[in-house]
Amino acid sequence: MDKFIVIGERIHCISPEIRDAMANRDPEPILRRGKAQLDAGADYLDVNIGPAEKDGEELMIWAVKTLQENLDNVPLVLDTANKKAIAAGISVYNRSKGKPVVNSADAGERISYIDVAAENDAISIALCSKHGVPKDNDERMAYCQEMLEYAMERGMDPADLWFDPLTLVIKGMQEKQKEFFEFIRQLSDMGLNSTAGISNASNGMPKEVRPIVDSAMITMAIECGLTSAIANPNDRQLMEAIKTAAIIMNQTLYADSYLDI
Amino acid sequence: MDKFIVIGERIHCISPEIRDAMANRDPEPILRRGKAQLDAGADYLDVNIGPAEKDGEELMIWAVKTLQENLDNVPLVLDTANKKAIAAGISVYNRSKGKPVVNSADAGERISYIDVAAENDAISIALCSKHGVPKDNDERMAYCQEMLEYAMERGMDPADLWFDPLTLVIKGMQEKQKEFFEFIRQLSDMGLNSTAGISNASNGMPKEVRPIVDSAMITMAIECGLTSAIANPNDRQLMEAIKTAAIIMNQTLYADSYLDI
Repeated sequence: MDKFIVIGERIHCISPEIRDAMANRDPEPILRRGKAQLDAGADYLDVNIGPAEKDGEELMIWAVKTLQENLDNVPLVLDTANKKAIAAGISVYNRSKGKPVVNSADAGERISYIDVAAENDAISIALCSKHGVPKDNDERMAYCQEMLEYAMERGMDPADLWFDPLTLVIKGMQEKQKEFFEFIRQLSDMGLNSTAGISNASNGMPKEVRPIVDSAMITMAIECGLTSAIANPNDRQLMEAIKTAAIIMNQTLYADSYLDI
Repeated sequence: MDKFIVIGERIHCISPEIRDAMANRDPEPILRRGKAQLDAGADYLDVNIGPAEKDGEELMIWAVKTLQENLDNVPLVLDTANKKAIAAGISVYNRSKGKPVVNSADAGERISYIDVAAENDAISIALCSKHGVPKDNDERMAYCQEMLEYAMERGMDPADLWFDPLTLVIKGMQEKQKEFFEFIRQLSDMGLNSTAGISNASNGMPKEVRPIVDSAMITMAIECGLTSAIANPNDRQLMEAIKTAAIIMNQTLYADSYLDI
């Protein structure tokens, strides 16, 4: 079984520090966060530049080059509502450590993000939704099939779609969580790759509770066959949970020092 | 869905303190450990008096009375290779907080422990093994069926068998862990109750790693439908994992303070 992929979520324009660094093209804060996440075990880094309607293409090109040139061609997830900015980022992307990932397509208005991935031999995250939250797993699976068909017609390898069941917040949608795991198991049974923004589940919870909830969520999801997650690799308890789940699922060989590797 | 049941494992004659207390009929160390486990959230207490070939009946009677009279009729799991001692313990057991549990039957030489449960309207833990470690889940399921049939012929309610898949040590049997979860899922799909000695998985691991591994194991197992576990309720991380899994599985209602409840 392949290694579980951790996508570091901390280069995100919602952070004032990162937003300013992006606006001023100041590499230092971005590289610092990038390195901290890689040191903690991230495999990919998500680069969220926001809607970036004005200068998105130039900004994404700058971000991709800055990160890859300084951090040994780290593989990246290009995350923005500006589709052209994603294509621009891919045009300067170095693939030596892994394909670029488009974040994200869905089965609705954003289905054309799959075209960006197909035209550029990239991976695409594929959100199993069309208009907001799917009402059940049948609806999720219908969207999954639509995107799968759309991508395959465009010559994509099914393995290059990372399906996201849509992580729902526990506070308010507690009764929907079991469905989330069942859907991951369905994807796994079909041999499909998957991803999830795990920390959405603990949104609104007290700060000290979130790492505990996120760790439990990801542990359960890995047992169900989740193949990657967008998460905070600098959450120590979360990374310990991911490494431990990999041991239990026999994806990495046990050693007494496995938490430090 | 019913509440997940935590069976506190710490009243065990393998501990020198408990062994001495049992030999001297000294209630204090036993009650102290019992109370500490209940305070931490244990639902049942396991009372392991060892083989107890000589004075097992009298010892178990003393232990049951000591614990129940001082700890508000706490429900107990009677754990010994001396079958008569279990029957003796049940004869003085107060059922107001829950039936006694026989620990344990298997599909081999210990199948007659089911008779003890059947004759005394008790629950029995039912180890899905016959001669050592079952080679796969088909063998586990065959033993499960044998015990189920045996118990039902004797008038037992299937819910009163708590099937134990046999937790295997990760160091040495890393590749067998996925089977363990699959079997729990099979039991759950059949509507059967289950239990597991979770900490067996982390046997031989460094002390600081064990709570992390045990927490991941139990979280995964609860997602698969495990209904109880024999565990150390004084392992804080483990109890946080159990409470969190119960929230995620929608077995208890979320509150910001759920970890303190």
